[in-house]
Amino acid sequence: MLFFDRMVVIGLGLIGGSLARVLREKGVVGEVIGVGRGEANLKRGVELGVIDGYSFDAKEAVKGAGLVFIATPVCTIPDVVAEIAPHLEPGCIVTDGGSVKEFVVKGCEPLMKEGTFFVGGHPIAGTEHSGVEASFSTLYQNRRCIVTPTEKTDPQALAKVVELWEIAGSTVPLMDPVQHDLVVASISHLPHMVAYSLVNAVDGYDRFEGDLLKYSAGGFRDFTRIASSDPVMWRDIALTNRDAILEMMDFFSGYLAKLRTLVEKGDGEGLREFFHNSKQKRDAIL
Amino acid sequence: MLFFDRMVVIGLGLIGGSLARVLREKGVVGEVIGVGRGEANLKRGVELGVIDGYSFDAKEAVKGAGLVFIATPVCTIPDVVAEIAPHLEPGCIVTDGGSVKEFVVKGCEPLMKEGTFFVGGHPIAGTEHSGVEASFSTLYQNRRCIVTPTEKTDPQALAKVVELWEIAGSTVPLMDPVQHDLVVASISHLPHMVAYSLVNAVDGYDRFEGDLLKYSAGGFRDFTRIASSDPVMWRDIALTNRDAILEMMDFFSGYLAKLRTLVEKGDGEGLREFFHNSKQKRDAIL
Repeated sequence: MLFFDRMVVIGLGLIGGSLARVLREKGVVGEVIGVGRGEANLKRGVELGVIDGYSFDAKEAVKGAGLVFIATPVCTIPDVVAEIAPHLEPGCIVTDGGSVKEFVVKGCEPLMKEGTFFVGGHPIAGTEHSGVEASFSTLYQNRRCIVTPTEKTDPQALAKVVELWEIAGSTVPLMDPVQHDLVVASISHLPHMVAYSLVNAVDGYDRFEGDLLKYSAGGFRDFTRIASSDPVMWRDIALTNRDAILEMMDFFSGYLAKLRTLVEKGDGEGLREFFHNSKQKRDAIL
Repeated sequence: MLFFDRMVVIGLGLIGGSLARVLREKGVVGEVIGVGRGEANLKRGVELGVIDGYSFDAKEAVKGAGLVFIATPVCTIPDVVAEIAPHLEPGCIVTDGGSVKEFVVKGCEPLMKEGTFFVGGHPIAGTEHSGVEASFSTLYQNRRCIVTPTEKTDPQALAKVVELWEIAGSTVPLMDPVQHDLVVASISHLPHMVAYSLVNAVDGYDRFEGDLLKYSAGGFRDFTRIASSDPVMWRDIALTNRDAILEMMDFFSGYLAKLRTLVEKGDGEGLREFFHNSKQKRDAIL
């Protein structure tokens, strides 16, 4: 069923491209226009059939659009909304894929004109690849997309955004933006901070000549895969979700200190329990 | 080429079973006898053709053996050697697969009779599965097996053990036991301590009702796969490689604290550099 004649995707990468693909495939959107800065990537989007056309001017592109999806770096989302807000059609719904929500929602809501709607969202999906080339229509299948309404959110716009993500294959929990930010700080941002620190520590350890990393096996490679993530994206996340990340880093450090004490004391039973509890919880999410 | 008429594998699991499989396949060993406590597992070893027979009595089993491979939990290796040492044939080579080497080598070397030889080894390979059922002959292919001679190690026994691991498909760096323990503390034991702590922290975070872990995506699952490892094995590693693990945990905590400061200050350039260095090092080991 066609919901929107014209959809604009600002930031045509893995996240934006994949949503465009699935919504086209399902017949939910008509024309899809990509907005970005890199022409090669936008052209490739046309060749791949992800978009029908493209523009470098977001203000121009949103004319006539019923749905705008912003998938640019999270730092830039309020700036993008500031640019397009005066040019939106009545009834237009703007939503985003940014992985920090208080910063985005607080920044964007006040910018919206009467009769146009902002709804924050965060699809918990991704791969280590980027660009429209990496996008695929099943990225969101069997995933969660957290949508973060506030008391200002229009209920019908909210319902529509939820429905879009469900059509894309995701389940859609609703969450307060602040709560969202603590949840992702714990299950995503904290692991990234830890993985980046771990690789830097092993790399920086200089008690021996030679490269420790060459002895790494599969476990280390899997464990540190997320330390290959885009440094600029993660800088932006660390800048925009500072308080929640600090809270989770400190919370984690408390557990690490607890384990350190067990190791130092040689507390066999305490160690076994600590590892056993972790294994149980981890096995439950396999 | 047949090197040993009789090989005994004490502890017939993933590690012991896989070495038996590949050495049989290559025709390097004749009869292979498994020693363990669980009869079901040993019977399964016979059915799978990994071993020709089994025994519950290591002293009995080592009679006539030219090669003994000990793949029991690392804590128990010196006890096993203490039990079998008086019963070894002249010329017998005893080696092991324990992941901590100073504890093992220091514990075992003094127990050996004149004319029998202990050589410490640590194949850096494994999966999250255990038992002889999980063993396969290519486990060691394109892996490293670190062999840890000391000044007391017999050069010919050392050469033979190196050759066995090369036949199994591994490259074989030689390392001092203490250096080995720091290397594995950094690339294996530290990541496990971190992963176990991380899962426990996320599980223990109680600022919200509900289960944070259900929001975890692929990144979190990969990152914490090693937190599903066997708690008893890791208790033993933490007990036997205490000093190296503490050193690496403290070294890591320094990097985590450095990152925490960057996040707290909102130092965008510092964050980008920190993440960028990590990504570069990680990408190099892909």
